[in-house]
Amino acid sequence: MIQPAFILVRPQMGENIGAAARAMLNFGLTRMRIVDPRDGWPNPKAVAMASGAGRLLDHAGLFPDVPTAIADCDYVFATTARGRELVKPVVTPERAMEMARAMAAEGKKVGVLFGPERAGLENEDVALANAIVTVPVNPEFPSLNLGQCALLMGYEWQRQTVTTAPEIMGLARTDFAQRVDVERLADHFEERLDAAGFFFPPDKSENMRLNLRNMWARLNLTRAEVQTFHGMLRQIAWMLKKQGE
Amino acid sequence: MIQPAFILVRPQMGENIGAAARAMLNFGLTRMRIVDPRDGWPNPKAVAMASGAGRLLDHAGLFPDVPTAIADCDYVFATTARGRELVKPVVTPERAMEMARAMAAEGKKVGVLFGPERAGLENEDVALANAIVTVPVNPEFPSLNLGQCALLMGYEWQRQTVTTAPEIMGLARTDFAQRVDVERLADHFEERLDAAGFFFPPDKSENMRLNLRNMWARLNLTRAEVQTFHGMLRQIAWMLKKQGE
Repeated sequence: MIQPAFILVRPQMGENIGAAARAMLNFGLTRMRIVDPRDGWPNPKAVAMASGAGRLLDHAGLFPDVPTAIADCDYVFATTARGRELVKPVVTPERAMEMARAMAAEGKKVGVLFGPERAGLENEDVALANAIVTVPVNPEFPSLNLGQCALLMGYEWQRQTVTTAPEIMGLARTDFAQRVDVERLADHFEERLDAAGFFFPPDKSENMRLNLRNMWARLNLTRAEVQTFHGMLRQIAWMLKKQGE
Repeated sequence: MIQPAFILVRPQMGENIGAAARAMLNFGLTRMRIVDPRDGWPNPKAVAMASGAGRLLDHAGLFPDVPTAIADCDYVFATTARGRELVKPVVTPERAMEMARAMAAEGKKVGVLFGPERAGLENEDVALANAIVTVPVNPEFPSLNLGQCALLMGYEWQRQTVTTAPEIMGLARTDFAQRVDVERLADHFEERLDAAGFFFPPDKSENMRLNLRNMWARLNLTRAEVQTFHGMLRQIAWMLKKQGE
């Protein structure tokens, strides 16, 4: 599967090129192309900002214009916030990366154009793309910069690869108490509470016991936590007994 | 529906507080809380960086510690990249904001903790949360800063309100022409049309060319269709030439 290329069109500040490289690498993307950067290439400020992601810049392709930068692409997205008069499909980042994945899985090359910081892509650039990607930002406050836009596109690419939900993985690694241990803990508490006259009045007692059992199960206690609860209860019982003596 | 509160815990640089405010407002989120900021409060650097999002800072709640900042919350997420020894569910931003939406719809108050720039949240902070949120970044290059983390969480909150029409099917299987072939086809037509005096009057010419280029890109022509268009154009040219003889 060929990853999409993130194509920075006439980027102005080296810092932003570096930030885009970091944003990409955060999500495992490494194919960067740069079209006619304002301050020439290579750019020391880009390298400084990229830090650990510097190798993206080393391997970035440098192109004089957009047509040559996208020549080998099968499909091109243009990221832009502003509405355009051009007739062109407009998709969300989510949909765009869904499309990109489907195409990449079939061996297609996908490019994503990012405009210069101040003005964004020109109509001439957008006209060359197959579709427009727009992040659904607050219309009263749209202020995404180059690095943020690359971050969101990279995030969407990566998000759609996550197959096992992390919460399941976290669950699987945890050493939960076995059900029988939870049952014994519930018994231990019920015994003590019974002795202390907790389940009162009698007609509510059954429901109180049920709610307690339900709570112990819901808590997802670990093996160690079950022992801690036993210990706490024993300690309190010992203390009360000692005070009573 | 009460929006989730983004709670910045012991933030260090004012610029990052401002960046977080901008990230939030991009996605229509306005409830910020700040816990024990290193450089005091208000912070002029935060205000300068926030620019249009300054009113978030004006209305941000200032708290001495995490327990008081989350006191009125019904459910709290802790954002953290590092694995923890704490037994706690770990969810993706997607799942977290899905949960947050469901809870907010029932009138619950949700808080999201963001740690200080350098070290992230302390275990003591994470222990107070109901669940951990981790952005699934490249394990070999996890470098999200405070503003980026707030941006992704805000994006997920907003994303789940947007519904998009599906038009993916077939895209991946289609043998689209490469961009360079589309470019050559556009050149071919433009040449012929130019020679035929099509781009008239001169002051409309540039826009006509732009619209044509846009059309060629938008058509999503297949490889075969591009050849067909070339063939049609050549055939017409041959016929005209023959008639002229």
